[in-house]
Amino acid sequence: MSSLASANQSSGESEDYSYGNWYIDEPNAREEASQPYETIPACQHSFPPSLYHTCLAPLSLVAILLLSLLVKRRRLCLGCCHGTFGLPSPLDFLAEESGRLVPVAVFGILFTKLCVLALEEDPLPFLPISSPAGQGYWKTLALLYYPALYYPLIACATVRHQAGYVLGCLLSWAHCAVQIWHKVECPQTPKIYKYYSLLASLPLISGLVLLSLWYPTQLLKSLSQKMAVTGLEVTGKSYYEDYLRHILSGKRSKSSSSVANPSFPSRILFYFLSHIYSPQRGFRLPLKLILSSTLAAITIYQEVLLLLVAFVPNLQKAREGITEEVTYMLAGFGLVLSEDKLEVIAWVKYYLWALEVCYVSALVLSCSLTFLMLTRSLVTHRNNLRAWHCGATLDGGPQPQKPGVGATAIFCWMSFSGYQTAFICLGLFLQQIIFFLGFVLFTFLVVIPILYGRNLLLFYMLENTWPFCLTLILAVILQNLTAHWAFLENHQGQQELTNRKSLYAVTFLLFPINVLVGIMVGFCRMLISALFNIIHFCQLDLSLLPRGVETLDPGYRTYCYYLKMEVSQSHPAMRAFCFLLLQLPGSQRLAGAQAGLRPSDVEEGIRLLQTKNSARNATRSRQSRIRWGLAYTLIRNPSLLTFRKKSLSGPLANGSQPSSPNP
Amino acid sequence: MSSLASANQSSGESEDYSYGNWYIDEPNAREEASQPYETIPACQHSFPPSLYHTCLAPLSLVAILLLSLLVKRRRLCLGCCHGTFGLPSPLDFLAEESGRLVPVAVFGILFTKLCVLALEEDPLPFLPISSPAGQGYWKTLALLYYPALYYPLIACATVRHQAGYVLGCLLSWAHCAVQIWHKVECPQTPKIYKYYSLLASLPLISGLVLLSLWYPTQLLKSLSQKMAVTGLEVTGKSYYEDYLRHILSGKRSKSSSSVANPSFPSRILFYFLSHIYSPQRGFRLPLKLILSSTLAAITIYQEVLLLLVAFVPNLQKAREGITEEVTYMLAGFGLVLSEDKLEVIAWVKYYLWALEVCYVSALVLSCSLTFLMLTRSLVTHRNNLRAWHCGATLDGGPQPQKPGVGATAIFCWMSFSGYQTAFICLGLFLQQIIFFLGFVLFTFLVVIPILYGRNLLLFYMLENTWPFCLTLILAVILQNLTAHWAFLENHQGQQELTNRKSLYAVTFLLFPINVLVGIMVGFCRMLISALFNIIHFCQLDLSLLPRGVETLDPGYRTYCYYLKMEVSQSHPAMRAFCFLLLQLPGSQRLAGAQAGLRPSDVEEGIRLLQTKNSARNATRSRQSRIRWGLAYTLIRNPSLLTFRKKSLSGPLANGSQPSSPNP
Repeated sequence: MSSLASANQSSGESEDYSYGNWYIDEPNAREEASQPYETIPACQHSFPPSLYHTCLAPLSLVAILLLSLLVKRRRLCLGCCHGTFGLPSPLDFLAEESGRLVPVAVFGILFTKLCVLALEEDPLPFLPISSPAGQGYWKTLALLYYPALYYPLIACATVRHQAGYVLGCLLSWAHCAVQIWHKVECPQTPKIYKYYSLLASLPLISGLVLLSLWYPTQLLKSLSQKMAVTGLEVTGKSYYEDYLRHILSGKRSKSSSSVANPSFPSRILFYFLSHIYSPQRGFRLPLKLILSSTLAAITIYQEVLLLLVAFVPNLQKAREGITEEVTYMLAGFGLVLSEDKLEVIAWVKYYLWALEVCYVSALVLSCSLTFLMLTRSLVTHRNNLRAWHCGATLDGGPQPQKPGVGATAIFCWMSFSGYQTAFICLGLFLQQIIFFLGFVLFTFLVVIPILYGRNLLLFYMLENTWPFCLTLILAVILQNLTAHWAFLENHQGQQELTNRKSLYAVTFLLFPINVLVGIMVGFCRMLISALFNIIHFCQLDLSLLPRGVETLDPGYRTYCYYLKMEVSQSHPAMRAFCFLLLQLPGSQRLAGAQAGLRPSDVEEGIRLLQTKNSARNATRSRQSRIRWGLAYTLIRNPSLLTFRKKSLSGPLANGSQPSSPNP
Repeated sequence: MSSLASANQSSGESEDYSYGNWYIDEPNAREEASQPYETIPACQHSFPPSLYHTCLAPLSLVAILLLSLLVKRRRLCLGCCHGTFGLPSPLDFLAEESGRLVPVAVFGILFTKLCVLALEEDPLPFLPISSPAGQGYWKTLALLYYPALYYPLIACATVRHQAGYVLGCLLSWAHCAVQIWHKVECPQTPKIYKYYSLLASLPLISGLVLLSLWYPTQLLKSLSQKMAVTGLEVTGKSYYEDYLRHILSGKRSKSSSSVANPSFPSRILFYFLSHIYSPQRGFRLPLKLILSSTLAAITIYQEVLLLLVAFVPNLQKAREGITEEVTYMLAGFGLVLSEDKLEVIAWVKYYLWALEVCYVSALVLSCSLTFLMLTRSLVTHRNNLRAWHCGATLDGGPQPQKPGVGATAIFCWMSFSGYQTAFICLGLFLQQIIFFLGFVLFTFLVVIPILYGRNLLLFYMLENTWPFCLTLILAVILQNLTAHWAFLENHQGQQELTNRKSLYAVTFLLFPINVLVGIMVGFCRMLISALFNIIHFCQLDLSLLPRGVETLDPGYRTYCYYLKMEVSQSHPAMRAFCFLLLQLPGSQRLAGAQAGLRPSDVEEGIRLLQTKNSARNATRSRQSRIRWGLAYTLIRNPSLLTFRKKSLSGPLANGSQPSSPNP
């Protein structure tokens, strides 16, 4: 056994154990020496968090009010404020052409704050906590406070105005400076693990850094160019035009993979990337899905970090702190690992080390599986979106026969990102528990017995039941063999049943054994079903229930309705047509106005298409057809524009009939 | 609290508790008085089981040999022994026309014996047990011994000969007499519960009684009628003719439900029966499904019996045996239910009674659910079979494009009944555990706190987290309300999205709360999925895995292949045609022979259709078409038979070409 102990030393914890050998008689002295239990000095911020919030909350409020005034002013100038109130929109979830960087960054900041908040004792530093119950109330309040605090960070970008960019710069710099200053001043915190707070805040800080770089860039751009907004619009326009051309041309454009003889690594890379990013021209995943995926990645990061720092350092400390007392404690429970106390300590340390390895392996496995499932989800999302765009429906999902959206769809759409994040969190946790248990059982019942000949529980069980197991295995093999060689006859190229009487006799005689085989198969069924559900728990695009009752699964139901809403409100072809219809006359009509057409005006485009004469449906549909045809022709033949200018801008602006149906 | 105690008395255990009040100071005396722990006297069988087996095993062997000789002799007489060996077939699983009573009875006997065997110490009474390990070997051996022992009981019926019936009478009487004699002599056994052995053997004894009545009846029939076998054949023939006529007529026959104005109860009964028994004329569930259902019912009986007698009497004993010592024991664990010792005893008794109620309720619920699932399975089986008969395929199952059977299908077909039985057993057990836990949690966390104001754990938790819960609920309600009233606009009868900016703002602001709502929804998802899978675990016709990966579920895979085998081998239309083809000339050709055509000769009918000239496929298919047409015409016009006798019996007997293709 001493050879084993030395093997242990060389493999896992060489220095710890060698120390343990020498200082085993002075456990207290050694413990104090090797484990100073480094006390983290109480760290006082020179700029306390309460002051930070007291300054930044009013600043944010002022920013919102200013932005609101700005929006109102522009609205009033344009003379159209139907349905929009003063508050600037945080972001346009349903538009493809709005930037994706700022929403992703702000959602990341918000979610990271939420994660950090869950473990913080002082959720709202500017409010005094009266009791532990009060802490709960403040946490609930903080769930509403932090979105409001970060609201201006995202709203400044959507206003697309120099004043907005200036405000954005100020706010993001202030947030970023304070956060970085706090972390530099106090990098270590006593909670859970000394660097946990720092590591957990990394996404928050990187998001803030990103914003405090993005806003100045945009400000500089808008200062240097007179019409900075046009650049963005041109992108949106070209995107939609591209998409429309691609859809209407009817033939697939050659993908970039048609390069002659790509190398093997680049092929693999391309194959992997083709799952994440669609090679179809003009097709983009909706912003909400991009957001959900980013949030899912942050969730995985935060959860893995927490699981890691909450378990591994403590286990390592426990391993280092093992002394002779453990042998007495184990003996008290009737567990005698060995006669030699040193050996017992070595074994306990070895077991703890094995436990740690199992834990980390389970974490790695569950993390990779969750990432894999996330990637697969993206593929499924893309396929489903494309199918819905073509009018297909999801298996078991809501039927798209009703063209409008319902309240359920809106509710599901609002909750989708939150649910996706929560499911990733729960799924990863479930996987970690199950895989950890599985690895521990495997290690302690199979690996250690085989390596060291200890804990032979499973092997004793096998030894006692081998005739039974052998009978079951033999029966299965026998049935398979007889099915192959005795009961099948090759009759003119077609396999036919033969020897029926023997088949019946074997079926009858082996029935009791088949019942027992069935018990084993039943356990397999349970295991497969449970593992499948746990691994796929984080996927919203997959129902955990079988065919026919899929929508009983609340996650899948949310996904189906989310998709319905997304497709009905942002079908790319529809949006492209609306955008172009507005763009063509608009760019000329509003050439003298201060601002060009914003992508959010597409909503107005949809409204324009709804003519007022509901009674004359036939005329309306004819009108619509003519209009689409007109728009399409004009896209393909831009030279005609000059001749059609008046007749086109007329009917689209006020909804009357076009002067001539034939372009 | 004393009012509660008196309430307890009146509700649950009035006499026990009132005794307890009086005799609380003499616990030992009272215990001995009220609980004599009735020792069951050791019971010696006057006809020991070892002798029973020593007599009956050779008798069964002799019976098998005699039957084998009988079969051989008849086979030799007929001059066709292709592929059949001497051993008589136990039953014709794939034929619809064979009787169903005997197979059901014998399988029931065999399975009951298997259940009783699992708990028996002496699985093979005629062999001495050397050690507990030896007991395991004997049990494994018994799995093969008992099917062989009961083999003649079923084989005697399939021979359809007077000698077979005589042997069947002898064997069934012997088995039945010995079993009944044993139970009458020793109705009580010390194991588990005094009457457990008697109750568990009931299906075995009733099966034996059934057989010992059936064989004499058949013997009398065959003695009184010269051609007793013909009766059976006529049944089979008329069944197939009916089915064929029904299929070929193309119009649905009126079902029996068309009686004018049936009463409400009879309607309900009919509705229920229509699920179990198909009203379609001529359609019958295959024998294997009938067998599996019977075995499933026996499994439920045996398992419920075992679960009931293993828990309830022991709990009742424990409840009666509660004395003052329990208070000390509880105090030792730091549990002080009350200051008054009498009250503590009352509470413990009440809790035990609640536990018992939960257990029995869970058992009733799981038993009813399993029965319901079994009924639903029968409906699905029928629908699936009909769909396969028409050439449809199961969702995700194997494609029926390959017309022949494969080894997998044969293996799955052989194991099907065993698996179904095992899954019912496992499923019921799982349900019992889960429902019991659920009921206990519900009773002790919700019902008792509400009724008596104790164990307020859940309510304390709710009290501490109410602002959190309220926020979540309010957020969900708010989102639903705004989705309905603020973000939806009724635009010419069609609902359209409006107020987009507010929608985006609400989505952003409520995101953190939606993550927490998502955690709750995730728990619901887990619960729904787990409950669904546990409740449907016993159903083989339902995959527990979602769409696309259904056949990864071993149970569903077995079911699909079983169905494929069943349909390919016993398609009713095919069998009906074969039967008729053989029947028409056979009844005249073999009129002088001792025995008529047996339904098992249908196999030969299938063979006859395969002509030897594989090269001339075109001729063959023309031949087949002509033959089917001929047979059909003759069925519809029996008067033509006399004119066609010679030309028909010729080609069918030796497979040569028919002399005239036109009937």
